[in-house]
Amino acid sequence: MNRHETRRGKLLRIIQREKLDAFLVTSEVNVSYLTGFSGDSSCLLVRPESTLIVSDFRYTTQLEEECPGLDTLIRTTDVKLPEAVVESLKRAKPRLRRVGIESHVMSVELQNRLSGELEDIEFVPVSSAIENEIRAVKDAGEIDELRTAVHLAERGLEYLKAILTPDLTERDASFELEHALRRLGADGFSFPAIIAVGDRAALPHYRPGLLRIGDAGILLVDWGAKTASGYRSDLTRTLVTGKASSKLEKVYNIVLEAQEAAIAAIRPGIKCEDVDRIARDVIAEAGYGKRFGHGLGHGIGLDIHEQPRFAPKSPMELKAGMVVTVEPGIYLPGWGGVRIEDDVLVTRTGAEVLSQSLPKRFDDMILSL
Amino acid sequence: MNRHETRRGKLLRIIQREKLDAFLVTSEVNVSYLTGFSGDSSCLLVRPESTLIVSDFRYTTQLEEECPGLDTLIRTTDVKLPEAVVESLKRAKPRLRRVGIESHVMSVELQNRLSGELEDIEFVPVSSAIENEIRAVKDAGEIDELRTAVHLAERGLEYLKAILTPDLTERDASFELEHALRRLGADGFSFPAIIAVGDRAALPHYRPGLLRIGDAGILLVDWGAKTASGYRSDLTRTLVTGKASSKLEKVYNIVLEAQEAAIAAIRPGIKCEDVDRIARDVIAEAGYGKRFGHGLGHGIGLDIHEQPRFAPKSPMELKAGMVVTVEPGIYLPGWGGVRIEDDVLVTRTGAEVLSQSLPKRFDDMILSL
Repeated sequence: MNRHETRRGKLLRIIQREKLDAFLVTSEVNVSYLTGFSGDSSCLLVRPESTLIVSDFRYTTQLEEECPGLDTLIRTTDVKLPEAVVESLKRAKPRLRRVGIESHVMSVELQNRLSGELEDIEFVPVSSAIENEIRAVKDAGEIDELRTAVHLAERGLEYLKAILTPDLTERDASFELEHALRRLGADGFSFPAIIAVGDRAALPHYRPGLLRIGDAGILLVDWGAKTASGYRSDLTRTLVTGKASSKLEKVYNIVLEAQEAAIAAIRPGIKCEDVDRIARDVIAEAGYGKRFGHGLGHGIGLDIHEQPRFAPKSPMELKAGMVVTVEPGIYLPGWGGVRIEDDVLVTRTGAEVLSQSLPKRFDDMILSL
Repeated sequence: MNRHETRRGKLLRIIQREKLDAFLVTSEVNVSYLTGFSGDSSCLLVRPESTLIVSDFRYTTQLEEECPGLDTLIRTTDVKLPEAVVESLKRAKPRLRRVGIESHVMSVELQNRLSGELEDIEFVPVSSAIENEIRAVKDAGEIDELRTAVHLAERGLEYLKAILTPDLTERDASFELEHALRRLGADGFSFPAIIAVGDRAALPHYRPGLLRIGDAGILLVDWGAKTASGYRSDLTRTLVTGKASSKLEKVYNIVLEAQEAAIAAIRPGIKCEDVDRIARDVIAEAGYGKRFGHGLGHGIGLDIHEQPRFAPKSPMELKAGMVVTVEPGIYLPGWGGVRIEDDVLVTRTGAEVLSQSLPKRFDDMILSL
């Protein structure tokens, strides 16, 4: 059994538990996870009897190469995807009565159409089952891929530091970083990098602009690499340009303390909200509670944001094999911000920081350009 | 009235026509189109009385800068987006009775939640209204942006041709092309480019791999540039490496004839399916009807695939201000493929090819590396 069959086997157990005849996978990432198919615009009908991929002309040859042995229904140009999905559900033998749908991604329009044209079938909303119950825990091959994604990102930052000059803009720094990641073997960034100078670092989702790196104090870099097979790392370092201020050092060390306390707590069985609270308490006790407005972190994998989520009211328990970011921050509008982010594998006994080759003590952040 | 207010004005007319009290915009691209906000994870509630954006902490400062004057509801970390949307719908005065939803993007899960928690409100599925009725026709500023996107892409191909060597791989060619686009001022590719050597050109959605450019005959390049404000071009040229075969020349000229015939037919009032058929007939009459399995083209704008669509059974009529791709192809598995694609503005009297500075006669495609 190859790894995609193993994953579909886990989905079959969900099908059985929910007393379904079939599960209709409409998330493109989930289709890819369950089959190895790297294209888009395709759906998967998983049943105990067989697995059928509904795709189109453009992918005929690609499907033969990437998913040999999978049943395929190739629609022609004049048949749209929903029509082909209806057809595949009608044709299935034995006849389908209860079909699970991914209610967190399926559109209202598609559901209305399926329900309208297939009155004999009950469509059962099953939200995020593949994400929460299967993809959240990585298999050995995925952990290797994530190690590679982290390694590539680490090498990328080393490159960026090596070529930085005060005259480089945030945008150019971002372009150079992605180009370097690709030359190192990555498919590119895992998400549009955030490279933020000075007070822009107070914007947790800033896009790199035309500001010069200069010597304004703060250079926040939040970036990651995507491997050729689609696995994504996500790291942040807050670098220091010019003369380091004592305020920056103080804020930096609070964030670092919060991050290290949270990582130290990571182990199978702990609730995500408890890990989040450990970091949040450190920051609140230092008087910056209102300045850390996002969740502590999230799973990574084929998507940049996966389960589990570190946030208040996130009761999911950690399990060995999960890979998560830990990324507390303090943001002071008009002044700047500090965020420190590493990628962490939950092991049987605790945690392994995958991104440990990048230093993160305050003194190590000071650049001399 | 700025351009975002003008666009919201058009949405208000749809609200009136559909007898709605409000329209809930959940497509991130549509939120951005209607407000100028460049972030994500946000929804927009548009009413005759006011426009409210529901966003989160990360975007507080960005919203002030990008959308001054817009009402905002900023959720805190412990409030998820659906919860904040429910809250915004509850709070609205006068009370809401009929709210339009984007049924082609809203998930079944979100609709179930809204319907469950807001029993007094009727949610009316309105599919693709903003895409079909507003975004399909570009305003003057958008046409300028698309001209820039095309110009950047053209310059990118000239650069790529200037640096091509037989030893470069498809992947490296792709990386060099995107890096060049960025240096020229683009935000990057408008979609992952397809760069395909030899028989790989038969795969309409191939991803660049480790094949050398070599002298195998065909080098298909399907690429585009995204401007800083998000507008996207989409072009294809099929270049010729090594000795040009007579079969390649024959197939190329059929595709070119099909493309030019379709472009010549473009004018306000013609149906999309008719433009599609004109190209399809040329290819069919030459005996390759089964080898052109995708639609003839599509609108471009903030998304790479917009309305209208050139395809069989696509009755939408062209209007002045639409910008579309025209991209027929012939694909022969095991041999290769030819596609030629330009971006075309529908004018009041006919069509303007935006990408006319790139040659496309067969002789102009022959590289000497």
